[in-house]
Amino acid sequence: MTDPEAPLILRESTPAGITTLTLNQPERRNSLSMAMLESLSVALEELAGDDETRVVVLAAKGNVFCAGHDLREIREQLDQKAALQELFRLCSKVMQQIIQLPQPVIARAAGVATAAGCQLIASCDLAVASDSARFATPGVNIGLFCSTPMVALSRNVSRKHAMEMLLTGEMISAQRAEEMGLVNRVVSGENLDQTIHEMASTIAAKSSHTLRIGKEAFYRQLEMGLTDAYEYTSEVMVANLEAADAQEGICAFLEKRAPGWQDR
Amino acid sequence: MTDPEAPLILRESTPAGITTLTLNQPERRNSLSMAMLESLSVALEELAGDDETRVVVLAAKGNVFCAGHDLREIREQLDQKAALQELFRLCSKVMQQIIQLPQPVIARAAGVATAAGCQLIASCDLAVASDSARFATPGVNIGLFCSTPMVALSRNVSRKHAMEMLLTGEMISAQRAEEMGLVNRVVSGENLDQTIHEMASTIAAKSSHTLRIGKEAFYRQLEMGLTDAYEYTSEVMVANLEAADAQEGICAFLEKRAPGWQDR
Amino acid sequence: MTDPEAPLILRESTPAGITTLTLNQPERRNSLSMAMLESLSVALEELAGDDETRVVVLAAKGNVFCAGHDLREIREQLDQKAALQELFRLCSKVMQQIIQLPQPVIARAAGVATAAGCQLIASCDLAVASDSARFATPGVNIGLFCSTPMVALSRNVSRKHAMEMLLTGEMISAQRAEEMGLVNRVVSGENLDQTIHEMASTIAAKSSHTLRIGKEAFYRQLEMGLTDAYEYTSEVMVANLEAADAQEGICAFLEKRAPGWQDR
Repeated sequence: MTDPEAPLILRESTPAGITTLTLNQPERRNSLSMAMLESLSVALEELAGDDETRVVVLAAKGNVFCAGHDLREIREQLDQKAALQELFRLCSKVMQQIIQLPQPVIARAAGVATAAGCQLIASCDLAVASDSARFATPGVNIGLFCSTPMVALSRNVSRKHAMEMLLTGEMISAQRAEEMGLVNRVVSGENLDQTIHEMASTIAAKSSHTLRIGKEAFYRQLEMGLTDAYEYTSEVMVANLEAADAQEGICAFLEKRAPGWQDR
Repeated sequence: MTDPEAPLILRESTPAGITTLTLNQPERRNSLSMAMLESLSVALEELAGDDETRVVVLAAKGNVFCAGHDLREIREQLDQKAALQELFRLCSKVMQQIIQLPQPVIARAAGVATAAGCQLIASCDLAVASDSARFATPGVNIGLFCSTPMVALSRNVSRKHAMEMLLTGEMISAQRAEEMGLVNRVVSGENLDQTIHEMASTIAAKSSHTLRIGKEAFYRQLEMGLTDAYEYTSEVMVANLEAADAQEGICAFLEKRAPGWQDR
Repeated sequence: MTDPEAPLILRESTPAGITTLTLNQPERRNSLSMAMLESLSVALEELAGDDETRVVVLAAKGNVFCAGHDLREIREQLDQKAALQELFRLCSKVMQQIIQLPQPVIARAAGVATAAGCQLIASCDLAVASDSARFATPGVNIGLFCSTPMVALSRNVSRKHAMEMLLTGEMISAQRAEEMGLVNRVVSGENLDQTIHEMASTIAAKSSHTLRIGKEAFYRQLEMGLTDAYEYTSEVMVANLEAADAQEGICAFLEKRAPGWQDR
């Protein structure tokens, strides 16, 4: 039973700065309704300004990570073009908010992630999957090609692998997703939280300032030609070296001691 | 013995809308002579306007899928620059016709595919290989680097894998091609047709209108930056939702019945 | 003990045209100090004009292939912005010199390659690793994100794999590097030189003129859209066919004899 008062997104933080956002509508398969997208967008916007959060884990309640868009909601708006435009604008915004977020985002891929749900996982910086997780972009089965999900998918996996998922709409296993590069690691369900905790803790121990610089530069340079990418990242390196954390990190390394980050 | 009357390209269609184009000059290793390229171009142009064809399989007769360009023909034209320019213009056009074709194209990779023959397979949306299939871009061995084939190859496999094939000219196995992402699946020779039939049938059961929208959007968004790709595909999603097949598909899904495509 | 007179880069050539450049400061972990980068840049510039060299192997003395930038040197220059800018400008130039070099470059990846050392290997056209080799982009551990190394890394491996290395800073094995596509092959340490020798010899037997045409075209077309890439490489093919080596290669092939390269 759905509790109408329950928040769509749960947020929980550890003292070490690991914040977990959890999609919390398992009875609606965590589908990306306008309300869910708005909640997610707000949560991401808040995190972007939250200096206490050093790493984000994106998780979901229940057996379905996320089933993509809310088809009932879409059906009601089929004759309302402006509403549909707003839906995909917001969904695309949320996916890009993950990429623009200063903190690294790790997807906790458990259960079934389909269509825009698969896109969510593809949009995260890292993903760890339970060995029972499954993925698909099945829009083609209902006449609605997964055209926005493919933006994220095709930037994670090779062309023929993406096309196979998109054209057949078939489910792939966690193991196959790992081979393709859609997820970083596959572990047993019982080891999933421990593996993600370790990965998140490793990253949370870094300088947040440095992570922010690096994550932004990563996605920007990916869209440049080689020469421009080197010019741009060379500037990033010099700017990075002017920051207190790099100077502390280099000195600590040379003095064989642990660094103390300022995290400006 | 060559039958001079035999068509260079065979075309066969099933009632379900699976059309197979077969390169039919095994005694000349199905090489891409001007005549073969012209036949292939015409066949693809016809398919583009053929509403009965829902999926295309690209196959070849004999032990050699395709040996690339016809070197005898090229040798005769070495001092005719305009003829050579026309040859590569037409070849590049054919490769792009595959990508621009509204229907998905599955390569039936059996035997040896080299140079522009390997490029043909790389240019298809999907590829299934027999376990005895082999692939190479061996132009470097005859002083003619596979510069046009590399366009397709390097958009299928990672940089170092492409470079290894291009610089060494060595043959790779079907298994290696699968690991690299050049083909989707490898099966035994005796299961090849059944596997391709199943994959083609799965795709042929979708709405052709939807496949057309999705395939076009896939290749267009690949060449865009992330923000542009999301703006473009968001528009594609909204337009897709205005089509009868998406509306039928969504309703059928919510009503737990099979959709009936209009296929406009 | 360091011999202050020892050259930073050793250069050795075989009669077959295989030139090995060896980073020769093992006691300083072959770090990319300004002096090392200048030596490497000069060596690459010389090779670019050396008609005797047909293939280049990039190797290193000692247990560390290359530890990246020289942090002691950087620490001394933390308040000298112009010096830091010059350092990254030169480093980025060297990486691009490898890509612009007319000859193919094979990395001999043995030992540990970190940060800009990992970038060096990613920048080579091909890489063969010893099974004990290891790779990391650990700048994040010292507050200095590997922003220039990521340019090369993210053009070799998929997005999530690159991000995992960059965000965690953790070491990966040679086996994992091969799965990701960072290196072409992994062999036992005792077979490393033999494997590289065979690969280099295979390539050295090709026409240098053809290799030069192909390598340049490869990296240029990678940055183009599909249509432009085909227009450009079609011109490259026609120009390639006007060269003596292609004409000799095609004739030799049709006459079933070994080609004799002119190597203009």
